[in-house]
Amino acid sequence: MPTILVAGGDLRYVYTARALLAEYDVCAVGFTRIFLPDSNILLAETAADTLPLCDVLLLPMPVSDDGVQVNAPFSSKSIPLAGLLPKLRPDALVFGGKFGAARELFTNAGFPVIDYLDSEELAARNAIPTAEGAVQIMLEEMPRTIHGSRVLVTGFGRIGSRLAYILRGLGAEVTVAARHAADRTRAQMLGCEAVDYTQIRASQFDVLCNTVPAKVITAELLAAMQPDALVLDLASKPGGVDLDAAQQLGRRVIWALSLPGKTAPVTAGEIIAETVSHLIKEQGVTK
Amino acid sequence: MPTILVAGGDLRYVYTARALLAEYDVCAVGFTRIFLPDSNILLAETAADTLPLCDVLLLPMPVSDDGVQVNAPFSSKSIPLAGLLPKLRPDALVFGGKFGAARELFTNAGFPVIDYLDSEELAARNAIPTAEGAVQIMLEEMPRTIHGSRVLVTGFGRIGSRLAYILRGLGAEVTVAARHAADRTRAQMLGCEAVDYTQIRASQFDVLCNTVPAKVITAELLAAMQPDALVLDLASKPGGVDLDAAQQLGRRVIWALSLPGKTAPVTAGEIIAETVSHLIKEQGVTK
Amino acid sequence: MPTILVAGGDLRYVYTARALLAEYDVCAVGFTRIFLPDSNILLAETAADTLPLCDVLLLPMPVSDDGVQVNAPFSSKSIPLAGLLPKLRPDALVFGGKFGAARELFTNAGFPVIDYLDSEELAARNAIPTAEGAVQIMLEEMPRTIHGSRVLVTGFGRIGSRLAYILRGLGAEVTVAARHAADRTRAQMLGCEAVDYTQIRASQFDVLCNTVPAKVITAELLAAMQPDALVLDLASKPGGVDLDAAQQLGRRVIWALSLPGKTAPVTAGEIIAETVSHLIKEQGVTK
Amino acid sequence: MPTILVAGGDLRYVYTARALLAEYDVCAVGFTRIFLPDSNILLAETAADTLPLCDVLLLPMPVSDDGVQVNAPFSSKSIPLAGLLPKLRPDALVFGGKFGAARELFTNAGFPVIDYLDSEELAARNAIPTAEGAVQIMLEEMPRTIHGSRVLVTGFGRIGSRLAYILRGLGAEVTVAARHAADRTRAQMLGCEAVDYTQIRASQFDVLCNTVPAKVITAELLAAMQPDALVLDLASKPGGVDLDAAQQLGRRVIWALSLPGKTAPVTAGEIIAETVSHLIKEQGVTK
Repeated sequence: MPTILVAGGDLRYVYTARALLAEYDVCAVGFTRIFLPDSNILLAETAADTLPLCDVLLLPMPVSDDGVQVNAPFSSKSIPLAGLLPKLRPDALVFGGKFGAARELFTNAGFPVIDYLDSEELAARNAIPTAEGAVQIMLEEMPRTIHGSRVLVTGFGRIGSRLAYILRGLGAEVTVAARHAADRTRAQMLGCEAVDYTQIRASQFDVLCNTVPAKVITAELLAAMQPDALVLDLASKPGGVDLDAAQQLGRRVIWALSLPGKTAPVTAGEIIAETVSHLIKEQGVTK
Repeated sequence: MPTILVAGGDLRYVYTARALLAEYDVCAVGFTRIFLPDSNILLAETAADTLPLCDVLLLPMPVSDDGVQVNAPFSSKSIPLAGLLPKLRPDALVFGGKFGAARELFTNAGFPVIDYLDSEELAARNAIPTAEGAVQIMLEEMPRTIHGSRVLVTGFGRIGSRLAYILRGLGAEVTVAARHAADRTRAQMLGCEAVDYTQIRASQFDVLCNTVPAKVITAELLAAMQPDALVLDLASKPGGVDLDAAQQLGRRVIWALSLPGKTAPVTAGEIIAETVSHLIKEQGVTK
Repeated sequence: MPTILVAGGDLRYVYTARALLAEYDVCAVGFTRIFLPDSNILLAETAADTLPLCDVLLLPMPVSDDGVQVNAPFSSKSIPLAGLLPKLRPDALVFGGKFGAARELFTNAGFPVIDYLDSEELAARNAIPTAEGAVQIMLEEMPRTIHGSRVLVTGFGRIGSRLAYILRGLGAEVTVAARHAADRTRAQMLGCEAVDYTQIRASQFDVLCNTVPAKVITAELLAAMQPDALVLDLASKPGGVDLDAAQQLGRRVIWALSLPGKTAPVTAGEIIAETVSHLIKEQGVTK
Repeated sequence: MPTILVAGGDLRYVYTARALLAEYDVCAVGFTRIFLPDSNILLAETAADTLPLCDVLLLPMPVSDDGVQVNAPFSSKSIPLAGLLPKLRPDALVFGGKFGAARELFTNAGFPVIDYLDSEELAARNAIPTAEGAVQIMLEEMPRTIHGSRVLVTGFGRIGSRLAYILRGLGAEVTVAARHAADRTRAQMLGCEAVDYTQIRASQFDVLCNTVPAKVITAELLAAMQPDALVLDLASKPGGVDLDAAQQLGRRVIWALSLPGKTAPVTAGEIIAETVSHLIKEQGVTK
């Protein structure tokens, strides 16, 4: 079995490491302050410790905050990125999520650098925990059942379509706002109403849930919505809600970032493991 | 419009009162310490205040803790049940949930006493917020997505069948344990596995969710389950989990009672209002 | 393995016989004019042939048209019921669907007679092929997609609830008419509109589908419906449609009886086999 | 209201004409041998008749078989394409499906020519009647219920994903074969198994349903499948099944082309009407 070194990362990466055991010898650095769920993971305090040479290096997302140390919140010691280089075989692959300034170190050393955040598969699969996280927030924040609630979902990409699907399964009345007629048709196939952005009647909804990384929840929509309705923004920075207008109007806005890691770290970790495993196979590493 | 007096109760009854406004003149006592969401409700501090004679009295569940005072957690003053009698027309109807010792007072005074907890409709509709409450707990307590999780649901009555249905919609792999072959067939129609109680293989599940008010989650099942799986009991007292065995084995058990009122008080209040409204129509009160 | 004798019946019973092979030695009479799908079935022309003594006799539905001969449409010879008696062990069980006059023969001979049509399980499971048969007819007869069609389902028992469920899955707008509020609530849980019979607005539907064995599709409803809408009656005799009125009004009515055997004989046969197998186990035959 | 001329086409275009009445004055040629469902459509025998000048010309799919006459199966007279030109305003728009040699006539005359078969929206919406048509064929051809049947769907585009969705709603066990990991993930979200083409185990299925216009149902798959399983090909020419191999192996193959027009002409006609209406609005014709 090839050897993979999991270096740093949050709770998800503990489960990534565990899931990788099915196909790899797994070493790990950066987890001294957390309990690892499987004793078959070879845990080291730092990369300077006796670790075998590795075929794959798996770095977290983001790889590093400063371009020098691995992003390793569960490590009691700092882990310099440069210290990982001696542990890699000459033909090793380096995976990470958002390399930033850290990329150069590895490319200069001649290693192929692959950002798994670019993977279609990872994005597709993360839609599941993201949508479930949104449902959890709705269940916690709304004083009524999702069944019978009127929900606006803006956007019908991976997250929007998954969210619409599971909200329908829970019995919500879902309206999807989408620009493309084909997306609106697909939303109708799930039993949703479908409108374009100019047709949104904001006052009709108990929840407005945005999935588009563009300011689609405008001041106008915020003004027209029910005062006690909830605005839930799932879009990554800069988000899709006019926060200034929301504050001025006193609207309740929840901006939920990085839901997979927060609400389902085991699943999120397994998704990273499986995505990386597939990417490795595409690169042809099979020892 | 007939006049209804809502006396006491928790947060749900605030929304019950609001929902009743569509068909009744609504008076209320017992809500001095909470904000009423509609100014058309005629609010009094106690029944001794100037209230009109009423056609219907709506009491909470349970009606009273001591058989003397109304169960009125939001009241700053105590509200004696006996004080309500002078506010009732001679042909008034008295509704409540679990009268206990309080029943005699009203029957002795010649009023028809109707327990809305006996209503099939109320029980059927409460399955929705109960099942959503169970999903909320799973989302909060489980470190993985419901999608792909393996859930055992014991019982396939109102709550069990609703829970199985929405868990399937979320992508869980659901196994239903039920005694009757016809129930198992209905579970299979939803895409669930179906077993009888002797066939449960407890080690296969991430969550065991009970809906049966009988000790079906036995010490044997608890011993066989995965140590980190979750046990969720939705059954009313005395519950369906062998709690002594669970404690000894260190199993994580959540016994979730009265979910509708806790997770969806608006919906729960509306359900009470609509059920009572239907029961009143069956009694023929239409002024 | 116990021995079972399958005597007569339509195409379904060929598959019943095959399915029973998993647990029984299977003999068969009454199938000389059809190809049996498994050579392990011991086929005889008549019961007079060399057949072993049997533990179970399985008769078709109905058992007999005249009380004398087995109902055996695929037999080239007639098969007298009385001729089966010598092939039964003294403690044999006799199963059939609607015995009528044939019952006496077996009870007089001292055999326990069990009508599998009384089984909750069989009725529950037959709802699946019945509902699929109804969908097939709609697909064939309607010039528009089920998606977006407006369907009235009268009754919310086994068949009505299954039909509503799968029509919702296909994207129809389903209205359920049911007498009990609890049934209407369950229909709403599937995303259906729910009304009682007095509230049906017949002109709103593309299809009216009845599942109730009582005249609920009245002359009044038939007169109010769209002239080109379809009426589909799934209720057994006497049916639920006022056929005289329908004829006078020129309404298109399809009365679909015995759908399981017609649209899915393999499944229908397997359902009989499994039901009888469960009933045998309840009777304690395990050799 | 702008005036639209519907010239020729099969049954669908009768309903296209009717649906267009909501927004247009509708004229029609080419329907002398069929009953038009609305008397507000101005019907002419040939374009030479007194028809008003039109803003839009709507031609069928295909526009013409010979490049000279309109494809007009319901016309008792032939309708030359050239004869339509004098009926068009100078700024008229010409819509059709597959113009072929007929395109030049209109472009030479200076009219914008728009093929509505290129519309994403039309393709997306046609997935609904296509998938329902496939279900109808399965219900008709299979001796067992779709519930519980094991179905392989090759391809997860518009048709494949819709088909998988509704088959899941009917209770089938669906396996989706798709090349892209993201498509497989989306299939899993619907509760399907997902494999790539190398992992298909053909012997496991009761139906193989292809949606990919490439030879993915190979001789090898056909040889490995159950002899009595059904092969259903929804892909347009040249189809996705190795027909020679299928014939040699005696496999039952149904190649179902143009399902929307056959199984749901009303819906198919309305889809054309709505698509063309949207395309007209994008072109800015609003009189």
